[in-house]
Amino acid sequence: MNSASRLKNFGPVFDKKNLDAFFIGCEPNVSYLSGYTGTESFVLILRDKRYFLTDFRYVEQAQRELKGFTILLRDKKPYSVMVKELCEKHGVRRLGVEAGRISFALYRALSRACSGAVLVPVSDAVEALRIRKDRGEIAKIKQCVEIMRLGVESLTASLAPGMKEREILAKLEYDTKMFGSQKPSFDIIIAADPNSSMPHAVTGETVVKDNDLILVDMGCVYQGYSTDLTRCFFTGKIPPLKRKIYDTVLQAQELGLRKAGPGVKASEVDLACRNYIDKKGFGKFFGHSTGHGVGLEIHEAPSISTRSPEILEPGMVITVEPGIYLPGQFGVRIEDMALITDRGAEVLTARIPKKLQSINR
Amino acid sequence: MNSASRLKNFGPVFDKKNLDAFFIGCEPNVSYLSGYTGTESFVLILRDKRYFLTDFRYVEQAQRELKGFTILLRDKKPYSVMVKELCEKHGVRRLGVEAGRISFALYRALSRACSGAVLVPVSDAVEALRIRKDRGEIAKIKQCVEIMRLGVESLTASLAPGMKEREILAKLEYDTKMFGSQKPSFDIIIAADPNSSMPHAVTGETVVKDNDLILVDMGCVYQGYSTDLTRCFFTGKIPPLKRKIYDTVLQAQELGLRKAGPGVKASEVDLACRNYIDKKGFGKFFGHSTGHGVGLEIHEAPSISTRSPEILEPGMVITVEPGIYLPGQFGVRIEDMALITDRGAEVLTARIPKKLQSINR
Repeated sequence: MNSASRLKNFGPVFDKKNLDAFFIGCEPNVSYLSGYTGTESFVLILRDKRYFLTDFRYVEQAQRELKGFTILLRDKKPYSVMVKELCEKHGVRRLGVEAGRISFALYRALSRACSGAVLVPVSDAVEALRIRKDRGEIAKIKQCVEIMRLGVESLTASLAPGMKEREILAKLEYDTKMFGSQKPSFDIIIAADPNSSMPHAVTGETVVKDNDLILVDMGCVYQGYSTDLTRCFFTGKIPPLKRKIYDTVLQAQELGLRKAGPGVKASEVDLACRNYIDKKGFGKFFGHSTGHGVGLEIHEAPSISTRSPEILEPGMVITVEPGIYLPGQFGVRIEDMALITDRGAEVLTARIPKKLQSINR
Repeated sequence: MNSASRLKNFGPVFDKKNLDAFFIGCEPNVSYLSGYTGTESFVLILRDKRYFLTDFRYVEQAQRELKGFTILLRDKKPYSVMVKELCEKHGVRRLGVEAGRISFALYRALSRACSGAVLVPVSDAVEALRIRKDRGEIAKIKQCVEIMRLGVESLTASLAPGMKEREILAKLEYDTKMFGSQKPSFDIIIAADPNSSMPHAVTGETVVKDNDLILVDMGCVYQGYSTDLTRCFFTGKIPPLKRKIYDTVLQAQELGLRKAGPGVKASEVDLACRNYIDKKGFGKFFGHSTGHGVGLEIHEAPSISTRSPEILEPGMVITVEPGIYLPGQFGVRIEDMALITDRGAEVLTARIPKKLQSINR
């Protein structure tokens, strides 16, 4: 789907909120609607015209990438004044802004500058379109998964006791970049044994030992689209408690993946995982939600949590990632990405092994 | 300086704005005041008490890292309700929030929840402390510069025609991580010849050829602190126009660095570079500001621009990075980091060569 079709899909929000214009400054939303791949730029959409506001650093890139937008170069005026002038020129009386994305300071500056218009904070207007991926987006995500798969394959072949978390990270990121990743989709977590009990551990100087668990939570970016995956690796022997926790998480995760499908509540996927972990007696060690949408952002709608109001629909791409974390000991999380289809869910990361085994060599 | 001293330095804002509490949600500010190195957490500071609000994913890390804070774990309530309860408990009537950092939606949620308190948006309260780096911060930045220097040395030895921008990026990031970098401090720019005319080009699939210019704008992160550097490399022959532009930028940049010192206006550093480039007839091809502060964030105060109101003071760490960009042809930018001292400016990146020469082998 191109920028023009997306802008057309965005149209109904104008009627729904009775708007004359919409100001968008959040990078993934600017990128989604305009096709621009840079940063620090803004879009002002009117019912019949589109402006792209940027500065000297990005103007050549914008000229190369955009179609159907009038590109305005910021010179000495702040953006709020540029928006004000456009609002006056086009007689804008109601100006939509992104409630959750605009800073209070920018909201206030726009509010003061555009004294002839009312600012209307709207939540998740572009996000609501982005939640269902189109064919082109799905193709990019699948390519990004393949890049990630090659990275994991290479990681599995090289991971060994004696390596520092940071060195493992360096090699993994190098390999994924050589396979085509633009960058990691977030700060990759390489958490050796005791650090793995912190769900979002910071990769550091810990050295992998024999008989360790190494939790790897990683993702790549390809043509702007992110992926997300968690696997646990074991060096040497796998003691019974780790084995038991791993089996429990894996079983819970499979239940969640099997539950996912069109028309299913996101909360049901969460509960499928959570109830199983509860039943096995580890409920209090699984304190985060089960997953989230992935696309232009690493975390986006829908939320896969106990209280999520969302219903899964074809085209949504979600993660299913329950975990059990024993403080001061270790943690296990297993995460796959699934595409909701007309009939069920396609596990996009299915080719990346998750069978419990030691990488001992 | 530890968290306690920083919180003490933060105290005067309470009197100045007549506040009972301050809510901080911006990651580098949370990190600066608390010592916490993770993400997605909040701090509520009262005159005589400090709370740290986080969720299950970060609680163990917070317990390991924080001193002097009461850690509260978010369960089912939103953060706005947790803040409300704390405000009620402590009789908070005026609650400071970070105007430029808090989203409009969160501002509104807090405003609605904390009906017994007035929200007071304050700009740059923590940023004003962060602008002057203390000894410990300077030591970290210097170490990060050294990591970057080793990375550039290795890049210089390996860069050659036939490599893709993305491959150069992969190797550079690998090397800097192996030398101790946590991650790049921003999306590193590797822009071969025609891409270099875009000041913030996106690293891509372009292959370096003979007689090319390669612009590299890079940075590392070490213990939370960022660095920033731009160098241009030349393969094979350097044609006269490139030579002329390079010499002009280098001369301008040296003038800027020589101008920097305590008591000097930031705008004077900008003008030292800009006036020289203007005089040489390339003024309209230098459309961005001359530099910025660097620390816990890659871009922070002070701004080194024509209209910057700031006066340089000892402890500030800034970049000086003029450039000339000929659209559709090529661009040159040269960037160093300088620490403002009692007597002048110490160029932190002075050991990283910038003499015009070809890397031809």
